[in-house]
Amino acid sequence: MKRYRNGEIWDFEDEMPVSPDGSEVVLGLDGGTTSTVCVCMPFFPLSDRPLPDPVPVLARAVAGCSNHNSVGETAARETLEQVMADALSKSGSNRSAVRAVCLAVSGVNHPTDQQRILSWLRDIFSSHVKLYVQNDAVAALASGTMGELHGCVLIAGTGTIAYGFTEDGREARAAGAGPILGDWGSGYGIAAQALTAVVRAHDGRGPQTALTYSILRALSLSSPDELIGWTYADPSWARIAALVPVVVSCADAGDEVANKILLESVEELASSVKAVVQRLGLCGEDGKGSFPLVMVGGVLEANKTWDIGKEVVNCIYKDYPGTLPIRPKVEPAVGAALLAWNFFMKEAHK
Amino acid sequence: MKRYRNGEIWDFEDEMPVSPDGSEVVLGLDGGTTSTVCVCMPFFPLSDRPLPDPVPVLARAVAGCSNHNSVGETAARETLEQVMADALSKSGSNRSAVRAVCLAVSGVNHPTDQQRILSWLRDIFSSHVKLYVQNDAVAALASGTMGELHGCVLIAGTGTIAYGFTEDGREARAAGAGPILGDWGSGYGIAAQALTAVVRAHDGRGPQTALTYSILRALSLSSPDELIGWTYADPSWARIAALVPVVVSCADAGDEVANKILLESVEELASSVKAVVQRLGLCGEDGKGSFPLVMVGGVLEANKTWDIGKEVVNCIYKDYPGTLPIRPKVEPAVGAALLAWNFFMKEAHK
Repeated sequence: MKRYRNGEIWDFEDEMPVSPDGSEVVLGLDGGTTSTVCVCMPFFPLSDRPLPDPVPVLARAVAGCSNHNSVGETAARETLEQVMADALSKSGSNRSAVRAVCLAVSGVNHPTDQQRILSWLRDIFSSHVKLYVQNDAVAALASGTMGELHGCVLIAGTGTIAYGFTEDGREARAAGAGPILGDWGSGYGIAAQALTAVVRAHDGRGPQTALTYSILRALSLSSPDELIGWTYADPSWARIAALVPVVVSCADAGDEVANKILLESVEELASSVKAVVQRLGLCGEDGKGSFPLVMVGGVLEANKTWDIGKEVVNCIYKDYPGTLPIRPKVEPAVGAALLAWNFFMKEAHK
Repeated sequence: MKRYRNGEIWDFEDEMPVSPDGSEVVLGLDGGTTSTVCVCMPFFPLSDRPLPDPVPVLARAVAGCSNHNSVGETAARETLEQVMADALSKSGSNRSAVRAVCLAVSGVNHPTDQQRILSWLRDIFSSHVKLYVQNDAVAALASGTMGELHGCVLIAGTGTIAYGFTEDGREARAAGAGPILGDWGSGYGIAAQALTAVVRAHDGRGPQTALTYSILRALSLSSPDELIGWTYADPSWARIAALVPVVVSCADAGDEVANKILLESVEELASSVKAVVQRLGLCGEDGKGSFPLVMVGGVLEANKTWDIGKEVVNCIYKDYPGTLPIRPKVEPAVGAALLAWNFFMKEAHK
């Protein structure tokens, strides 16, 4: 075992010096801007057998934000290390049992980001442990494909990104650039458009809308004038994106303005997927080839009448009838664990 | 003279105990998010004579940001006090010569903001000095109307706002809610749309555009991927808005994407003015009455081929042929000084 970066984090190993039944594990971690989840999965030694479905999860641990762009390098690192230790400790196992780790973290956009995380991860685990670092979108894809990197994933929560992979290892992304750079299909984008519509209705630039009453009530404000103060008091994207259900309710109730905002969001989300499919040729030469489209995130989940995810799929079908929409049954952290296992097996059989 | 809030700021008065020639002055201050300007203007005792044109300015002092939302109450206050002291000191005069002060500061949106600033301003000046606190848009209007509060002002710099006043004291505003709440016509809005267009061209969601080459060159970046890091490293609105000239150059050179962004900005800016004119009935009952439209800010200044300000006026003319566009010959701080004088005279002749 290597030197401890942080003695306290791994103290539990003193009471649990070896894995009780000698069983081995893989760790999968999904690190986002809102929260970080780590799961501990048994290591299946045979690569020629399909993994059990559902995938067994030995333990699950949760922590806060681990995006280094948001909280800084040191805090991100400590959060990641702690959540891995928690998952191992809960599973009754320790680092000597780990065969592979996949960290899928938001904010990993360049090989330099990967290298930086890999280098401190290397200090935590023994040299025989296989370590993989990916963008969190990759884990979301894997959560719908049992760890296979092929197809496209569309994530639409507070933010949005479309990420695609071909079987021969090419990849492409669209959107995921944050709200300043026009991720209008995201939860943040939908909510910001709704807030804008309220301001416009109030100052005479736009039509009246039921969003005014509904949003003011949701925020306990008495006038649209107060929205400026509310917005800039804490411009956290998640706080604003939390208004999406209000927009969907208004659209469900027939409000034209809310309806238009959701329709534009559908167009935006579909255009991200189409751009990725087009660039990677996921649909084959005739445009009719099939490919998995994994759909993840609160914005894409079914609502009462208005189902954003369903509308996005309808919009993509028109151009790519081979689209196979998948709503994952497991969370992205499990996708990361599946990736760790898949990567390990591929390396072992090179 | 009241107690000094900050001894050092007013130390110069010890060497200049009385106004040298007994002449009196008014102070006009324009406090924005980027900078703060204070001018010292002679006090003209007769209200029945028009003020000289050009208005004589005895001294001018400049400081940084004085928006309390940006820098906090204490720093804003010190900046405002210092810049007033500087202007007085430079004019060879002191507080005993001051008859009226108008502070026009961005971030003043509610009567409570006004009251807060008035209360500490009252500590600085003797009780006979008339004190007025306004939103900075009001000074911009006054800079084009020789201090009369009638008509509409459109400001489009980093941000944008339309503000209007009727002769009987009603007022209305549109936009000015910041970028999250959809001030798309602003310099920030134009630049953010241009950055978005570059990202979209890069990831396949949008058409190719000359903006890519021009913006990357302007920012010394080598790939659109680096825009994400550049943008979120320092999301200051002014830093992003500084890209407007690049967008205008591309539109001048015939780039369709840049052209469309500017056309949308024109529509947005015109719609703010129209909303204010409509709500206040500035155009009279038949819609053809004339009213001054004061136009202020870098976005509205003439460019080579593409003149955003001219296009905005053309767009407003279609609905309101009585629009009288004015490009002020003096800066907003002088507008604030003119306001101070006008308010003073109106109170004196009540």
